[in-house]
Amino acid sequence: MTSDTRWLLPDGIDELLPERAAAVETLRRTLLDHCASWGYRYVIPPLVEFTDSLLVGLGADLETLTCKFADRMSGKTMGVRADMTPQAARIDAHSLGEPGITRLCYAGSTLHSVPQSVMAGRSPIQLGAEIYGCEGPEADLEVVELLLALLDQCQLQSHHLPITLDIGHVGIFEALLADAEISEEAGAQVFDALQRKSTPDLAPVLATLPKDIARKLTELTELHGAPDILSRARTLLGSHPVACRAIDDVAAIVSAIEHRHPDVAIYIDLAELRGFRYHTGLVFAAYLEGIGSAVAKGGRYDNVGSVFGRARPATGFACDLKALSSAAVARQEHAGWVSVPITDDPSLQAKVATLRHQGLTVVRALQGQHDPRCTQTLVLVDDNWHLQPL
Amino acid sequence: MTSDTRWLLPDGIDELLPERAAAVETLRRTLLDHCASWGYRYVIPPLVEFTDSLLVGLGADLETLTCKFADRMSGKTMGVRADMTPQAARIDAHSLGEPGITRLCYAGSTLHSVPQSVMAGRSPIQLGAEIYGCEGPEADLEVVELLLALLDQCQLQSHHLPITLDIGHVGIFEALLADAEISEEAGAQVFDALQRKSTPDLAPVLATLPKDIARKLTELTELHGAPDILSRARTLLGSHPVACRAIDDVAAIVSAIEHRHPDVAIYIDLAELRGFRYHTGLVFAAYLEGIGSAVAKGGRYDNVGSVFGRARPATGFACDLKALSSAAVARQEHAGWVSVPITDDPSLQAKVATLRHQGLTVVRALQGQHDPRCTQTLVLVDDNWHLQPL
Repeated sequence: MTSDTRWLLPDGIDELLPERAAAVETLRRTLLDHCASWGYRYVIPPLVEFTDSLLVGLGADLETLTCKFADRMSGKTMGVRADMTPQAARIDAHSLGEPGITRLCYAGSTLHSVPQSVMAGRSPIQLGAEIYGCEGPEADLEVVELLLALLDQCQLQSHHLPITLDIGHVGIFEALLADAEISEEAGAQVFDALQRKSTPDLAPVLATLPKDIARKLTELTELHGAPDILSRARTLLGSHPVACRAIDDVAAIVSAIEHRHPDVAIYIDLAELRGFRYHTGLVFAAYLEGIGSAVAKGGRYDNVGSVFGRARPATGFACDLKALSSAAVARQEHAGWVSVPITDDPSLQAKVATLRHQGLTVVRALQGQHDPRCTQTLVLVDDNWHLQPL
Repeated sequence: MTSDTRWLLPDGIDELLPERAAAVETLRRTLLDHCASWGYRYVIPPLVEFTDSLLVGLGADLETLTCKFADRMSGKTMGVRADMTPQAARIDAHSLGEPGITRLCYAGSTLHSVPQSVMAGRSPIQLGAEIYGCEGPEADLEVVELLLALLDQCQLQSHHLPITLDIGHVGIFEALLADAEISEEAGAQVFDALQRKSTPDLAPVLATLPKDIARKLTELTELHGAPDILSRARTLLGSHPVACRAIDDVAAIVSAIEHRHPDVAIYIDLAELRGFRYHTGLVFAAYLEGIGSAVAKGGRYDNVGSVFGRARPATGFACDLKALSSAAVARQEHAGWVSVPITDDPSLQAKVATLRHQGLTVVRALQGQHDPRCTQTLVLVDDNWHLQPL
């Protein structure tokens, strides 16, 4: 590498320069404050952990996504977090260990060994909120509504982009698969084919299953569209009690959202299984018009705490602040920039402190040069320092 | 690993639970806002880079401190940032490439392969401010005063701990070493011995040097104490123009700080060379009474941008938010926690939104249970929702 190429960043790794960095920071504070006002307490999970901790339970799917290296102190393998959800689950299950319901939120850099999609970066700044210790659709509804509230917050700063909420339920697929009594490997193949919505890949696996289940799994891939699809799902799966309960859960959430957030478009996809295999129930994703990929993803992932000695119901979501900030616009800093001459006058020091306290940016004119962002300066008139246009 | 030990974090790696995490977040915002009010623009450098970029120039000293792994996409070696200063220098030199003076600040997790001191963690949350494009003591004074202002800010939140500012100047050592005309290796041995303040290690190296220089280097190790030590330094090094200029620079800063910040104790140590070999001029560290290690460190590191094609004067400092927050106390959240029943009443939704906007934390009573932090709840009286103690 020479000085011409030495500054090159790895593919998918970016740095944020002042304007974008300010947008991300504004959004970060707004969203974390909003989570706090809903009772979600902020935690800071570690940047790295032993892969033994990071990749057990709900983390097992993250294996290939995680960058690993040997810990010089212990000789064991460490990994940089690829997803903070498993860390929050560990904090709930082990570090806090509270009885009852625990709400947590977090924000921080994560790292992916390969991008998760064509347009995705490899180092999302993940912000998320999770609720532990509560089963049932109440908690699912709360996190979905919190997500919608966060999207509203970041849209206040820009034109309002229509929101689409994509809802699925892993429980329906799981219930059908349980009936099929196939090997874990065959089950994983069905999961992968469904996830990629690939009918050609699905056909050979389904051919080995009982006809009735194969037909239902095939039809599952067609169960997507507006919420009225749920009645078709009931016709198809009506005889299956577990699947029916899942459909009821989806219907309850849909009805509440339609009632409270009539401006949000809802799209049902009962074959949608999200990115990670750790989900166990209702799953969801939010889209903003004009942005191709989901701006936030979430869902239920019960019992992952069991690997840390404490099984807990769990649901939550996470978004990438970098991606989301491209939809939001940084709050304009209306307060101005002031250039200040360098002198030892104590009255000037006091004036500068006051201006900064009032929200103005006050920059020293080092080497006698005004910072180009400054539109005003301080001048001494009749023994008093006054602002004057530059 | 079993469920009993699986949650163990690597030595020196910690997670911050709600109370400490809130303290760090409050401090982070306060300090970044203060940097902004001085004209320092926030940037977000990448979490990882190719080691070719991360470890050239001023980064070369960070080699052993950096955790490295192979990039699956390029096959090249990447490293997790151990220090964000080199990243800020690259952003100034290459990505921004602005003429004149550039002020930048940043905050983020870093990772060290081994702890830098006995008590230090391996994943500091580094917050720093840097100024590029300005030589001379004006810029050094600005960053030292910004650091003192930040320490004042975090102390507002706790009892005021006396501050000691430790000041040195790498230029004096460098000037004496240049005269000695010894090999780079021998120079590095002198540097290491000086840094460890180890007279036994120093003696054999000095024995090979011209007597006059050896004597001055030995005496350098004794030049520490209150600012009046500077006159002894002038007597010792008066005949050396480069060393004299360095002493003048230190004296100018000391005089300004004594004048503007009479409550700050100043300690001079002309053999203090900081942790990293990248410094070139004035170096400093801040201590708070009762906290054994420095809470912030900084200094001048001119010309490091040259490896990215643009040599720039540079000075700045960084602190570890985790360490600093142990001295500060989180602002108490005076606004209360309110439990809210789950109903579909639109007037309740509006009331909840208003309370949250007013700064109250409003938590849904999922499964009919009040969050234990809540001291009030909302009850319907005469068709209106009212706050009522729990």
